Amino acid sequence: MKETVEEQQDFVKDITKMSDDFDRWYTDVVRKAELADWSGVRGMMVVRPYGWAMWEAITRAFDDMIKESGHENWAFPLLIPRSYLMKEAEHVEGFAPEVAWVTRAGGDMEELEEPLAVRPTSETIIGALIKRYIQSHRDLPKLTNQWNSVVRWEMRSRLFLRSREFWWQEGHTFHASGQEAMEEAQLILGYYRSIAEDWLAVPVLSGKKTPAETFPGAVYTLTVEGLMRDGLALQMGTSHYFGQNFARAYDISFSNKANERELCYSTSWGISTRLVGAIVMAHGDDSGLLVPPKVAPVQVVVVPIFRDDASRIKVEGFIDGWGRELKAAGIRHRVDWRDERPGDKYAHWELKGVPLRLNVGARDVDAGQVELVDRLSRERRAVPVAGIAARLQAELAAFQTKLFERAQKYQRDNTFELSTLDEVIAHFRERSGFVWAPWCDDAECEARIKTETGGVTIRTIDSDEKASGKCLVCGKPAEHRVALAKAY
Amino acid sequence: MKETVEEQQDFVKDITKMSDDFDRWYTDVVRKAELADWSGVRGMMVVRPYGWAMWEAITRAFDDMIKESGHENWAFPLLIPRSYLMKEAEHVEGFAPEVAWVTRAGGDMEELEEPLAVRPTSETIIGALIKRYIQSHRDLPKLTNQWNSVVRWEMRSRLFLRSREFWWQEGHTFHASGQEAMEEAQLILGYYRSIAEDWLAVPVLSGKKTPAETFPGAVYTLTVEGLMRDGLALQMGTSHYFGQNFARAYDISFSNKANERELCYSTSWGISTRLVGAIVMAHGDDSGLLVPPKVAPVQVVVVPIFRDDASRIKVEGFIDGWGRELKAAGIRHRVDWRDERPGDKYAHWELKGVPLRLNVGARDVDAGQVELVDRLSRERRAVPVAGIAARLQAELAAFQTKLFERAQKYQRDNTFELSTLDEVIAHFRERSGFVWAPWCDDAECEARIKTETGGVTIRTIDSDEKASGKCLVCGKPAEHRVALAKAY
Repeated sequence: MKETVEEQQDFVKDITKMSDDFDRWYTDVVRKAELADWSGVRGMMVVRPYGWAMWEAITRAFDDMIKESGHENWAFPLLIPRSYLMKEAEHVEGFAPEVAWVTRAGGDMEELEEPLAVRPTSETIIGALIKRYIQSHRDLPKLTNQWNSVVRWEMRSRLFLRSREFWWQEGHTFHASGQEAMEEAQLILGYYRSIAEDWLAVPVLSGKKTPAETFPGAVYTLTVEGLMRDGLALQMGTSHYFGQNFARAYDISFSNKANERELCYSTSWGISTRLVGAIVMAHGDDSGLLVPPKVAPVQVVVVPIFRDDASRIKVEGFIDGWGRELKAAGIRHRVDWRDERPGDKYAHWELKGVPLRLNVGARDVDAGQVELVDRLSRERRAVPVAGIAARLQAELAAFQTKLFERAQKYQRDNTFELSTLDEVIAHFRERSGFVWAPWCDDAECEARIKTETGGVTIRTIDSDEKASGKCLVCGKPAEHRVALAKAY
Repeated sequence: MKETVEEQQDFVKDITKMSDDFDRWYTDVVRKAELADWSGVRGMMVVRPYGWAMWEAITRAFDDMIKESGHENWAFPLLIPRSYLMKEAEHVEGFAPEVAWVTRAGGDMEELEEPLAVRPTSETIIGALIKRYIQSHRDLPKLTNQWNSVVRWEMRSRLFLRSREFWWQEGHTFHASGQEAMEEAQLILGYYRSIAEDWLAVPVLSGKKTPAETFPGAVYTLTVEGLMRDGLALQMGTSHYFGQNFARAYDISFSNKANERELCYSTSWGISTRLVGAIVMAHGDDSGLLVPPKVAPVQVVVVPIFRDDASRIKVEGFIDGWGRELKAAGIRHRVDWRDERPGDKYAHWELKGVPLRLNVGARDVDAGQVELVDRLSRERRAVPVAGIAARLQAELAAFQTKLFERAQKYQRDNTFELSTLDEVIAHFRERSGFVWAPWCDDAECEARIKTETGGVTIRTIDSDEKASGKCLVCGKPAEHRVALAKAY
């Protein structure tokens, strides 16, 4: 996590203000906080260590969750024959426009008999392969997952949110009953909610997507949706129930307890490196990032302050003393000995969103204390070094909670209840956020919302229960309460 | 890790005997122990959970090592423009014959302006990107690593050892001096030795490759080489020193302390899923796998034995009691409640190479003991359940040591010292293993060894010190002592 000279100088320069231009602010923060850059290969990004470490923290958390409930990691091929991809009609239609094709290989770049897709998602190859491993109901459920990257030939691009390659996990599960598969999709949705709320400190709405927003080939799609600081919603994870659609297309069947062949019921679900973008957009401010402690690559940064070699040695010995305690307590910390002025270091670590900073000068050594500054309040507090590891752990836990509560308040303050399309149009002309409204379930009404508001969509359906009131568009009795928002 | 009916039946069938046909034995074990299969996409494999879990154990161990010494994980693009790949002449020559090319993308499968290589290795894309992050000597070293899969259009194929896609880590580091880069290459070689010996229980020879066997574009290549149970050597990891070759091709320079521009010195290094194949071939026997406890997905399997519901309940309660202790102690264990006969379960877990098995019947419950069987000696011993977690941890550690010692003895018994090409030819006509011999450093002599023995190669050079004796081929004074072997 070293910085180049060029970037070190950048740190003291202002980044674009969030209120001036949210998009430029976002790109500035992602690049200057060293999360990621465009790679030079069009639409493809390079994720730098500080960004990748956040993704690693997410992967560990989620991998633990799914393993605890019996899921297993596999590795399925990167390249998928065209014929596999073409079997599920809706799925093809959804993904074919975004596929990158391997058509040649070897020394003479010889043309392949059949083009191979660089996987945009793996339903088709897993569908084709998994049936070998499923004969009887005793072989079910098959709970597979894999961590990899996928390629989708996107035309628009935005670091972490939309790029031609992104990193994710994709779970694919196969069950003996629809009920069990639906419960699986719901279980995973709960995990995604936990990743968003408990780990990333981003409160989410969760529920079903409308048919128009459902994954190609799925019976229904469940989603968790967070609210970013520009008032736009971000889909942070989706979990799909396929019924027997994929099993039918790929002939994945089992002999049930009555010894009859039956098609499996399946699900798939994924979260991606887009979540790193969510951290930036849900918590950042004009000074840069704020990283939730649970996923922070650096939870505590120590900035030593000294005038001469003597005071440097004094400060260094002091830090070494309790630095070991922090390491033993598993606190991810770093001492910034770079040859920079303290003020520049403060700005640097604020930009990187490190939750806690400890300023340590020679006078602190004498007093047996450090100066603690947290990235949220920025207040300076003197803290004794006795018992510092436990103290910092408590501070980190409190920081995580405060960050979540702040995001909850933001979400609450930006969630509205409206009843008519006119109100909704007027609302989104002035502001953004989530708007709850009653809807009749009609796709035409849904389409009208999108056109007449210039892009507002139904992010999720509140629950399966019938709503009261009248459809915001047509005025007929409503079926469901839905959350509307502009979204990434 | 459930099994299909078909496979459950297979478990009681014999696998090919190792002594009858090593290659068929290998494939049988890999497939029937559920490590991996061919995928149906030619030359590409699917790694199943039991195989992937071994790779995950290796990744965790190695990732900890490199992070401890300041390396950082990045994610670089999967697809590499053709022009990037063409910059380092030797490198191109080495890899171009094996590249798979993306030439079309999007809805109409439109032809791309420039073909993109699916990465066969990432020197070229990292070379092109890393220079942005390197300005001054203060930005060095840059110690990058990534975990991913690569594609190489191989014509021969063998599960885990040679396939068109494999999974690996690739480290790429950049330094301000050649000395430091050479130390880096050596540091990593030490880690690879530790992974092979301390984790996989496979003793290795380590040292430099000859120029003929050096990585395309490298100044030199370091290697660790293990001996498989058919007497063939397996390259288990390589670490390359590039000098300034790649820095020159990709213009990666820094301003040194004298404020002059200077080209960086770089290294790259990798270990791959081939190591799972090494576990099979270095330790397996006619009954299947033997997995070193440190990387075993299941370290201890418990087989309950009961005749009726009453004894089942009794046994289950007993196992639950100390099962929790095992979990708390971090022992990866599983209780096999499948509806199979105990004898079939024994064969099943022997095939899967689980180090320790506990047989638990109603009489054991009364005696407060279990029957412990280890996969190496297969002796049955009664063991009290009091303090069982600590006992099993000690047993697992002892198993790891014994497996390594057995492999060491095998390596010792199959390592020879010869002086002439005739002796070497005669030796490899009858048997295999490592043969140490003196060599003059001449590439022609090296080539003659290969042709006249039908494929024996120099696996590694003993050390940089000058050897005594005469070249085994030409009889001129020897420069180095080298290890010869047939290899995968």
